[in-house]
Amino acid sequence: MGRPISIEISTHKKKKPLENERGFGIHFSDHMFIMDYSEGQGWHDPRIIPYQPISLDPAAKVFHYGQTIFEGLKAYKTGDGRVLLFRPQKNMERLNRSNDRLGVPHIDEEIALEALKALIAVDQDWIPEESGHSLYIRPYVIATQPALGVDASTDYKFMIIMSPVGNYYPEGVNPVKIYVENEYVRAVRGGIGEAKTAGNYAASLKAQEIAKEKGYSQVLWLDGVHRKYVEEVGSMNVFFKINGTVYTPALSGSILNGITRSSIIQLLQEWNVPVEERVISIEELFAAAKSGELEEAFGTGTAAVISPIGELNWRDEKAVIGGGVTGEISSKLYVTLTGIQRGLVPDPFGWMVEVEI
Amino acid sequence: MGRPISIEISTHKKKKPLENERGFGIHFSDHMFIMDYSEGQGWHDPRIIPYQPISLDPAAKVFHYGQTIFEGLKAYKTGDGRVLLFRPQKNMERLNRSNDRLGVPHIDEEIALEALKALIAVDQDWIPEESGHSLYIRPYVIATQPALGVDASTDYKFMIIMSPVGNYYPEGVNPVKIYVENEYVRAVRGGIGEAKTAGNYAASLKAQEIAKEKGYSQVLWLDGVHRKYVEEVGSMNVFFKINGTVYTPALSGSILNGITRSSIIQLLQEWNVPVEERVISIEELFAAAKSGELEEAFGTGTAAVISPIGELNWRDEKAVIGGGVTGEISSKLYVTLTGIQRGLVPDPFGWMVEVEI
Ligand SMILES: Cc1ncc(COP(=O)(O)O)c(C=O)c1O
Ligand SMILES: Cc1ncc(COP(=O)(O)O)c(C=O)c1O
Repeated sequence: MGRPISIEISTHKKKKPLENERGFGIHFSDHMFIMDYSEGQGWHDPRIIPYQPISLDPAAKVFHYGQTIFEGLKAYKTGDGRVLLFRPQKNMERLNRSNDRLGVPHIDEEIALEALKALIAVDQDWIPEESGHSLYIRPYVIATQPALGVDASTDYKFMIIMSPVGNYYPEGVNPVKIYVENEYVRAVRGGIGEAKTAGNYAASLKAQEIAKEKGYSQVLWLDGVHRKYVEEVGSMNVFFKINGTVYTPALSGSILNGITRSSIIQLLQEWNVPVEERVISIEELFAAAKSGELEEAFGTGTAAVISPIGELNWRDEKAVIGGGVTGEISSKLYVTLTGIQRGLVPDPFGWMVEVEI
Repeated sequence: MGRPISIEISTHKKKKPLENERGFGIHFSDHMFIMDYSEGQGWHDPRIIPYQPISLDPAAKVFHYGQTIFEGLKAYKTGDGRVLLFRPQKNMERLNRSNDRLGVPHIDEEIALEALKALIAVDQDWIPEESGHSLYIRPYVIATQPALGVDASTDYKFMIIMSPVGNYYPEGVNPVKIYVENEYVRAVRGGIGEAKTAGNYAASLKAQEIAKEKGYSQVLWLDGVHRKYVEEVGSMNVFFKINGTVYTPALSGSILNGITRSSIIQLLQEWNVPVEERVISIEELFAAAKSGELEEAFGTGTAAVISPIGELNWRDEKAVIGGGVTGEISSKLYVTLTGIQRGLVPDPFGWMVEVEI
């Protein structure tokens, strides 16, 4: 890459969380990656340093105008000690699509990937080995220029931090109850919903909190225009099996283009399971639930991989899906994808990328 | 307030920018205010300290999920050396409305106002005296909990920073050219458009950049549902005088409830100028421009106070407003509001709050 990554090894190693203490994104590994951007100079000074607080001017644009984007992916340790990443190039491509939408300068995808691998190599003993556990990787960019004018920053930091994460399903994969959100909207076409950027998550906090209070684990977002078409569930894409065909909302401009989502579409096609991307209305889903044709529903994303949905609540009407138990396709997708990710089953699409450690 | 504000005076005074160097939000005064929040303990440790970088964990939620809100107001110095604030309670009320939407704990409005006044008193020699100049004040809250789960933070910082700002109109108030945005959307009903939070500004950067490249100074946002109704212009509310009546978009849920906006409505009512809040379509505006009935248009906000609009471009059709010169009502509002703010004309509504210095 012309600009080698400098590495400063931490002299004070942190205590690693025990298997049952991991949680999600609470503990962080010993090192982090940083690279700076300034106008004129471009991206420079890529470095791995001990995990440490960062110091920013109180006027840094990230605090005021949310010019920030991020990614999320995982490193897995296989039974024979290899380290695998799931389609990391896709994350780096999406990183730059998000950058485009937010007016953040592009990052060389090769350099970002190299940085990520170098950081993993340094902190390889942070990758959990237990089944269902992994090292969650968070690349992100923040705008650092200390100036209150509402325009794109002249300065940025690209960082990568990593967190050992526990099993999303400590008691086995179980369907969750989902609250269909009628009042709040996550994103609208023309907005920033397609980008992985802070504002979308900020917009989701309130609805998520209310749903939790009502006993639901996530929110199903409807589109902001008609308040009728299904978009995403929490921070996951969503799929529905109706009468033998699997449907997922088409990428409309307000939905994140999930890497798990596109992998699932590929797997289903490979298995000759009919799969379609199209608009799906909430009425259609409730009608299909009533007639017994709504066979399965599940969310998809890096964190949970597959999250089966057992119940939808829409304006206090409830639809129980698949008798509230995990469906066949959901199970098969979960087993296959997590199997590929841990190197347990063949990887027909060449998705996994090995990290040299 | 029970918890006195501790004050640490800076031993190293910064050089103040000269009159023509001020710009907007580039230079910051010698001190800042901070107060911390943690779950269980609530808001605590209010303090004024020398302006300095803040140190945050790289996993702090503000970097990832944009849980942040802010305010903006100004302190003015009068000819006889008094320091005035324009309706600061309104900012603190809005701060808490934004907090509500973003799941941020409320801040005692009295304490926030007291903090603001104390900070101004400490840095009073940073308030410019020249006409059109002022001290811009930025209260804001950021989520600081170092955790990647998408939910409301357990920890926050409330800060206030201040910046001496120059005349928005160094060459006199002149109408600007505005680009009506067709592709990008700033906010939608049900989203966070009503709150003063980072995500809305992040969503605006790209459109703003494109408009600038095309030679326009700001974007006029249309609603995200019909792409037809006028919402705001850049970071300002917007008014149109059509056939003797002044119209401004009704607060629909996606528009910021501007303090300048509501003050202007009050002033117009006082002057017996017909004023109405309602939906306004872009077609209506272009038809009124064609028939000669669109007499004036202007943006309103803390930064510019009044920003007259001389031209709108919508899908490459241009509407010139008021012959491209500043209209009578725009001028009168500008002179009156800025006069009240600087203590030059009577303050019939008791808007101004004096800071004891
Ligand atoms: C809003 C949103 N939708 C969907 C997804 C799923 O994307 P991926 O499968 O790439 O993790 C994510 C991220 O996990 C997300 O944040
Ligand atoms: C999006 C937006 N609209 C309108 C305004 C005007 O509000 P105010 O008059 O309270 O400054 C602002 C802030 O200046 C803003 O950021």
